[in-house]
Formats: sequence, structure tokens, C-alpha cells
Amino acid sequence: MWMSEPASFGAPLPPAACPPRLSQAAAPLTRAVEVVNEFGQRRTLHIPAERSLTLYLDKHELVTLMTLGAHPEWLVLGYLRNQRLLSSPAQVESITVDWDVGAAAVRTQGGVSDWQTRTAQRIVTTGCGQGSVFGAVMEAVEQIQLDPSARLRQSQLYAILRKVRELDSVYKQAGSVHGCALFRGEELLLFVEDVGRHNAVDTIAGWSWLQAEEVLRGDDKVFYTTGRLTSEMILKAAQMGVPIVVSRSGITQMGLEVAERLGLCAIGRATHTRFLCYTHPQRLVWDTPLP
Amino acid sequence: MWMSEPASFGAPLPPAACPPRLSQAAAPLTRAVEVVNEFGQRRTLHIPAERSLTLYLDKHELVTLMTLGAHPEWLVLGYLRNQRLLSSPAQVESITVDWDVGAAAVRTQGGVSDWQTRTAQRIVTTGCGQGSVFGAVMEAVEQIQLDPSARLRQSQLYAILRKVRELDSVYKQAGSVHGCALFRGEELLLFVEDVGRHNAVDTIAGWSWLQAEEVLRGDDKVFYTTGRLTSEMILKAAQMGVPIVVSRSGITQMGLEVAERLGLCAIGRATHTRFLCYTHPQRLVWDTPLP
Repeated sequence: MWMSEPASFGAPLPPAACPPRLSQAAAPLTRAVEVVNEFGQRRTLHIPAERSLTLYLDKHELVTLMTLGAHPEWLVLGYLRNQRLLSSPAQVESITVDWDVGAAAVRTQGGVSDWQTRTAQRIVTTGCGQGSVFGAVMEAVEQIQLDPSARLRQSQLYAILRKVRELDSVYKQAGSVHGCALFRGEELLLFVEDVGRHNAVDTIAGWSWLQAEEVLRGDDKVFYTTGRLTSEMILKAAQMGVPIVVSRSGITQMGLEVAERLGLCAIGRATHTRFLCYTHPQRLVWDTPLP
Repeated sequence: MWMSEPASFGAPLPPAACPPRLSQAAAPLTRAVEVVNEFGQRRTLHIPAERSLTLYLDKHELVTLMTLGAHPEWLVLGYLRNQRLLSSPAQVESITVDWDVGAAAVRTQGGVSDWQTRTAQRIVTTGCGQGSVFGAVMEAVEQIQLDPSARLRQSQLYAILRKVRELDSVYKQAGSVHGCALFRGEELLLFVEDVGRHNAVDTIAGWSWLQAEEVLRGDDKVFYTTGRLTSEMILKAAQMGVPIVVSRSGITQMGLEVAERLGLCAIGRATHTRFLCYTHPQRLVWDTPLP
């Protein structure tokens, strides 16, 4: 974590020790639209906002993301983290989002070397769409060590599912968004929604990079997603050191294989008291007898 | 359509007039896995297959798709079509898929010019993931003309929804896949499932490119998808000349804007007799009074 990096002795504290300066760009998250229902009646309802955000890395155009726009600065930071274009948030001097032009300007400390090379390989992953990751992310699996002692009690899982149900969300108002959440045990740390589910997890990855080590220390992190457990989703959770992932949906074959290999406990079809544990059930503690 | 291209007079029929040779690679679509349910009981169930398919265009590695694998040759053809790397299937001599190595070799007639340039721009679209399209596909909207006289009767819509419900699907057996279907009126032409919903529509686009003109002529095509109506999904349907799109899910803001501009009738939240018409309700004929 960047806060624990050693400062050079005798020299002034390097700029790397300062957190990146982030704009706080805001934009409406839903939009009212007029529809016609099955009775031929006109009705007004809300749909989620969706806007394009073009990411400029030290003035080089990198990518355009389509996003709800709730937390664009964390999204950009998490995107750069998960694409492994940055190895520490300390490399970032500032992220400035301007919704008038749909642009996010990222200024780094000293530039990002060989970003062209690192963005050259294309893997179009499952997601629900054709997700795109730079570089051979699959190689990353071998480098991740998840704490083998991490456990989740069944009662905590049920508390997590209850908290997610009770959240005030864009989904409840407008549908058509995916939600992700990071929990410490059953304590909700952050809940993020986006029109793209990878944006939601990238936003959590960006936010978590900015937290002090004590917020994220420990083995009791649980990542929740409304979307399917694809390999990319599992991997992004594991890259945050999260050993337990919970989904309302199912799992894909690659998601299962990656979770298996990582030692990550993947739980799907989780609603109310129901769930399926696909991998590493030894991480679950059965403390809630069901009728 | 390629079948109607004029042959050069006096010269032998150009190879372009032959349909591409396609392999017929087959692979299992589901896999049995052992899970633990909420009672701590071990159960065996099925999940969808998910395999990587690396696409080589005239021996150049282009992209790796993660797919269920039901119709890899149509998927590859439709991918190249929707990324606008090909303008006609006649450009393709053969598509050979080999699941043992997870590769699809595409051999073209005379090569694809400037494919590097055309794949340079990245737009990461919503999908549920970060979909990736090459080139400024949004520009394509202006070039599409959908027949303004196309109509769908409410009773036909209900017949379409009934047929989709009754299909024997991977979804019913294993969940976690998206489905797409192309209808002519209420007649089902093709139903495709995939772990990635863009793969499913790309597969339909590939298949439809191979059909004789009379199969697809006319204004009575309806595209059905289980996924959300994102801008990319709407656009891919419109590129097949389809003026009416139906989804079990909702719509995103960009999807709505693109449908509005295209003159495309976008219908969402469609199950049984319920639906919402988001755009161009003049294309719907209200022939089924509901109680």
C-alpha cells in the first residue's frame, strides 16, 4: 500500500507519498423517460444514466469507458490498477474528470513506461459483453496468495445478503445496473453501481487503493456482485486480496477454474438463505441450521 | 448480400461468389460440477462451458474470445462483420476452428487491408462487462436506414415471447448464459446462446450473412435478447436491418438514444403479456386487448 512506502531518509518526502488529487465530478445518475406499456398507456419512468468517459493518460488517449458516472475518479484509478498499468496509486499526481467534455485526465509522476506495449494484447472476456483486458492477466493468478485461514460464517453471509437487499440503490429506482460491494466481515465498506459491472468492481478497486492499510488489512474481506462470477470478476477480487466472493448469479467455467486455483471461495445464487458454494467450501463455517 | 454481387462478364466466376468453407467444430456445452448448498449438502449440477478462441486473421493474431462454443465459425464471421473488418462474407475463403488448440484460422481472399488501423481505437462499451468495439461504430448509426413501414403486432410479440420460453436451452439446464434470437414475424429463424451476450448476437450476425437473400428480405425481422438493450446491442441489430428489438431486460441511456435516432422500436421488460416500449411505439400494432 502506498502509505507504507518508505520515504528516502534525509530527503524531502517524495511526492509519491501524497495521495493523488481527485476532482469530484458529479452528474445525475438517472434520467426520466416516457414509455408506452402493454396497455398502450404512456408512463414516465427512470432509466440509469450512461455517459462516455475518455481516459487520457499523460495526454495520451487510452480508452473510452461507458459509465453511470457515480464515482468516475475511483473508476479511472481502479481501471488503471486492474489493467496493471499502475502498480501503486502513488504514481498518480491527479485525476481530473470533466463531464462537459466526457474526459478524465490522468497525470502521473514521471509517466507510465511502455503503456503501448502493455495495452497491445487483447483478450475479450466474457462479462456479459466482450470485456477487454490488457496483457496476459491470467498469468496474474499464479502471483496471488490469498490467506488460507480466511473464513466466512453462514450467519455473516446472510447478514451481507440482507444489507445488500436493504440498500437504497439506482437499481431499485431504475433497474439495468449492476452492483458490487466490499464488506469487512458483515460490515459494508463500499457499495458501487454502474451500467457496466466491470466498472463497478474497478471503482471499488480504485477506492480501496486509496484507503489506509488498517481499513483493508486482514483476511475478512468479502466481495459481493450482482453479476455472474466470470474469471475476470474473480481475478479482480483476488487482486484486492479478497478470499471470498458472493454473487446473486451463477458462475462460468473459467470463473470456477480461476477460483479453484486461487483458493478463493466462490458462492453463487445467493439470495435470502439460499446459496451454492462452488469452490473451497472449507472457508465456510456452518453456524446457521436451516429448517 | 454476397450472393447478388455481379460476376465479372466473360471472366470465370470469381472465388468471391463461393460461400466460405467453414469447419464444424463441436464441443460439449455444459460441464458437471460438484457444489455445496446452503444445507452443507454436496450436489452435482451443470454450468455452461466457457472456452477461449483465439482468432487469427490471415495468420495475424487478432483477438481472443471467451465463448460457450456452440457455433464458433458463425461467431468468428459475425465478429469480423460487426467489427467492420469485413464488408462481405465473400472476402472469407475459410474459417477453421480447432478446439484442441482453441484457435480459429480465418483465411481471406486477398487479405484485409489496414486491419491494424481499424482495430486501433478502443471504445469500452457497457454490455455487462467492458465490451470492446473497434473503430468509431457510433458513426455507423448515420449510415443505417431502417424500413419506416415495419410493424409488429402485439399478438406476434406475445407469440415470440412464448416461443422463447418454450425453447430447450442451455440456460434452462445450466443458467448463466445469455440468449439471442432472430425472428421473421413470429417465426424463429435462429436461437443462439453464449456466455457472452455479444458473442450471441455476433453469431446471429455471422449466420445471417450466410443466408440467401430471400431468407432475410423484408421488414418483418425481430431481434430478441435476454440481455439489456445497450447501444451496441441496438446497433448490431440495426446493422442486420432489424427494425424491432425485444429484451427481457431494460435499456440503457445510450441504447435508448441510439434506438431513437435509428427509428428502431426498442421493447424491454418483455415477459408473458408485459412489456415497455421505449422508442418508436408507432411500429407496434395494438391487436390484443388486455383485461
